[in-house]
Amino acid sequence: MIRAYVLDAYGTLFDVQSVSAVTDAAFPGHGEIITQVWRMKQLEYSWLCSLMGDYQDFWSVTRRALTYTLGILGLQPSERLFDDIAEAYNRLTPYSDAAEALAGLTGVRRAILSNGSPAMLQALVGNSPLAPFIEDTISVDPKRCFKPDPRAYELVEERLGVKPGEVMFVSSNGFDIAGAKRFGFNVARISRVPQADLAAELAGTGPLSASAFYRALRTQEEALGYPPDIVVTSLSELAAPPTQGGGREPISAAPR
Amino acid sequence: MIRAYVLDAYGTLFDVQSVSAVTDAAFPGHGEIITQVWRMKQLEYSWLCSLMGDYQDFWSVTRRALTYTLGILGLQPSERLFDDIAEAYNRLTPYSDAAEALAGLTGVRRAILSNGSPAMLQALVGNSPLAPFIEDTISVDPKRCFKPDPRAYELVEERLGVKPGEVMFVSSNGFDIAGAKRFGFNVARISRVPQADLAAELAGTGPLSASAFYRALRTQEEALGYPPDIVVTSLSELAAPPTQGGGREPISAAPR
Repeated sequence: MIRAYVLDAYGTLFDVQSVSAVTDAAFPGHGEIITQVWRMKQLEYSWLCSLMGDYQDFWSVTRRALTYTLGILGLQPSERLFDDIAEAYNRLTPYSDAAEALAGLTGVRRAILSNGSPAMLQALVGNSPLAPFIEDTISVDPKRCFKPDPRAYELVEERLGVKPGEVMFVSSNGFDIAGAKRFGFNVARISRVPQADLAAELAGTGPLSASAFYRALRTQEEALGYPPDIVVTSLSELAAPPTQGGGREPISAAPR
Repeated sequence: MIRAYVLDAYGTLFDVQSVSAVTDAAFPGHGEIITQVWRMKQLEYSWLCSLMGDYQDFWSVTRRALTYTLGILGLQPSERLFDDIAEAYNRLTPYSDAAEALAGLTGVRRAILSNGSPAMLQALVGNSPLAPFIEDTISVDPKRCFKPDPRAYELVEERLGVKPGEVMFVSSNGFDIAGAKRFGFNVARISRVPQADLAAELAGTGPLSASAFYRALRTQEEALGYPPDIVVTSLSELAAPPTQGGGREPISAAPR
């Protein structure tokens, strides 16, 4: 029986692509590539810092990834402009269906488990329309490692008192889906980029937008051997009406 | 005093881009994107498997990354074609200056430390023109983790009996440079893509080749706080003549 829905934040409830307004205003014409490389490196750096045994919180990782990104482009912002761009990660736009979807998840506990530092998550979630529907916003920070390190996922039981088998973990991020599934959660994947659409976009032999390359690398299910239990195309599909009887079935979408 | 040069294999001595002949022959017109996504995912998967505590050797990682890559493109090779493509990683072309550069590193021990599985490295190095110059080809496999996990770098002292401070570690891979430097090696970075050239390539607002996006993500120095001691633009610059006196100076390139 599912007792808690635990959702990823960056890319799942909040749209990381929404930084593009800030990146493009800061460096007109370069917003697209900054946005994509920045996000690629932000996650790479979270994995590498964890692996190197050199934990730094996600704010540091986010800023280092931005330093790399602007560096390869030869862009040299003032300290203030750099800070302003970095702050865009604290003001991401929630997906349009996120609040309604969370509101519809009645009869279960609802929490966030995120790589974000406590301060980032406070800024991101605290003032968002999602806040009223979230019981607990859990940062991996006390564990001094990032997802998909299993220690990050242990926080759910420690904070909510629910066993892994009682959790439906929701993420759009392939690495997170694999890590959560390996850890023992039930996992729902939010698939926002249909594979056939992506294949069509990539089918040409010509050049690609940076965002197409990003979609190729980071929006599909990983081939790591830990597929999700359920795939839905939007958060709103999570909020299916409870089935009859005592237990709430995970969600209505067909199992794979 | 530097007593050993320890070199990375994939991307440093051997050109990972050389799989493109195989990928393009298998799926004409798609070779470029397959080559780039495959390599991106190969390293991502090595990091993620390590982080998840789910070590699989680099051959498994390489095949899983290929599965992902062909999957997002909607390509469905026969089992035999899949195997043939995967095998391309066992027949990479050495960089043209690799053998001569290794030959020029006299008076020091010379070894490889690679993520590759023992079988992959046997296939790759054993039949290559580099073999005569390599005393030991060290796979991370016995440690059941991948670079930049510090345990991978411990193998150098265990196998060669040289202290980290006596090692010049050579890599073109940013994550490997950061990990090796944090571990305590002296580190020489092979910089094959000048930052200014990359910035010029990325400066336009139009679409990019997949290889340009790869270069943007994986050929530059990381902003992880562990810069290399020395940067050279090719392997041949490593083989500077020994300085006068007893000790061999690291190499002739200017320290940063």
